Amino acid sequence: MTRAEAQSPSSTSKEPRTERGRRTLRRLLDAAAIEFGEKGFHEASITGITSRAGTALGTFYTYFDSKDEIFRALVQDLSNRVRVTAGQALVGEMSPLETERRALSAFLSFAREHKEIYRIIDESEFVDPASYRSHYESTARRILERLHRGAKQGAFREGLREEHAWAIMGMNVFLGLRYSIWSEGESVDEVAELANSILREGIAAG
Amino acid sequence: MTRAEAQSPSSTSKEPRTERGRRTLRRLLDAAAIEFGEKGFHEASITGITSRAGTALGTFYTYFDSKDEIFRALVQDLSNRVRVTAGQALVGEMSPLETERRALSAFLSFAREHKEIYRIIDESEFVDPASYRSHYESTARRILERLHRGAKQGAFREGLREEHAWAIMGMNVFLGLRYSIWSEGESVDEVAELANSILREGIAAG
Repeated sequence: MTRAEAQSPSSTSKEPRTERGRRTLRRLLDAAAIEFGEKGFHEASITGITSRAGTALGTFYTYFDSKDEIFRALVQDLSNRVRVTAGQALVGEMSPLETERRALSAFLSFAREHKEIYRIIDESEFVDPASYRSHYESTARRILERLHRGAKQGAFREGLREEHAWAIMGMNVFLGLRYSIWSEGESVDEVAELANSILREGIAAG
Repeated sequence: MTRAEAQSPSSTSKEPRTERGRRTLRRLLDAAAIEFGEKGFHEASITGITSRAGTALGTFYTYFDSKDEIFRALVQDLSNRVRVTAGQALVGEMSPLETERRALSAFLSFAREHKEIYRIIDESEFVDPASYRSHYESTARRILERLHRGAKQGAFREGLREEHAWAIMGMNVFLGLRYSIWSEGESVDEVAELANSILREGIAAG
């Protein structure tokens, strides 16, 4: 585990020990999201990040060794926030299909509020391929767990596999690109409902 | 229309007038796919392309003004080839659902043969955002046309919209990433069949 991973707010070891430290780290990651989102990795700079965060340059180096390291921590952080956002939408009793609908709706809203997430995750394919891959592999794994849970409850059919999870993740990612990043003309709930109708009944004529 | 677009093999005006010219242009585009796919846009060079193509540097400038221009033409070319590949798989009578299955299967095979396509299209988000957007918008438009045609034939349900087309495109793109680019352990036909089962009946228990 690298130092950046160890010190990410989402990790459990070697986190900042004080509340103040956690707040500073959060400010640096939020500033990095804006800096990398606006300028891209290559044009972004550590001083750009610290100036947005309102921290001294020395403070940056308390947490990260390099631009690469904060970028890696940021991808991990965004990946965690997507997971937490979907999880928070799932309160109370609901069917497994409803779970998928609400998770997508929450993701679409999150992407509208944090448009930089697409550019950053997409750029990680080039800047930090391991993080890119890990983000999608862990997201697909989570979806597959939900599919298997839903099948156990009798709500989803038997035999759902990794392929189905990747298909659903792809749907969600592209709906976010189109209806959260490129335009916001549609209601996120309606987009999520239309996608959910595919999971519910497919697209074949009844 | 830029000169690159005008001279792409897929465009209709200002194409090379001779068969030999068309072959040279094809060789340059194929060499560019390898060069950009291996090195990425920034590290790739025009001499790297001409050396792979076995053409003189001057020949390059007969067709393109710059690295940016051949990159743009290449994204357009790959986008066209994806379209043509899917189209070629659709011979003979088949149901609209079968059409979707075969189009995906053909795409997965094409992506295995041309793994560089993902890196190039994905990098166009940063190097040439208009091409990136245009590739996905035109692909989604084509899927939506198929959905409407299928609904007219009574095979797909009524009310299918752009959202459904983007969802299906997202499924296909992510299945390609996982099962054509990252690993080839699964049969493309089986992956396409599993994805098709979502379109046929959704994932809910019967």
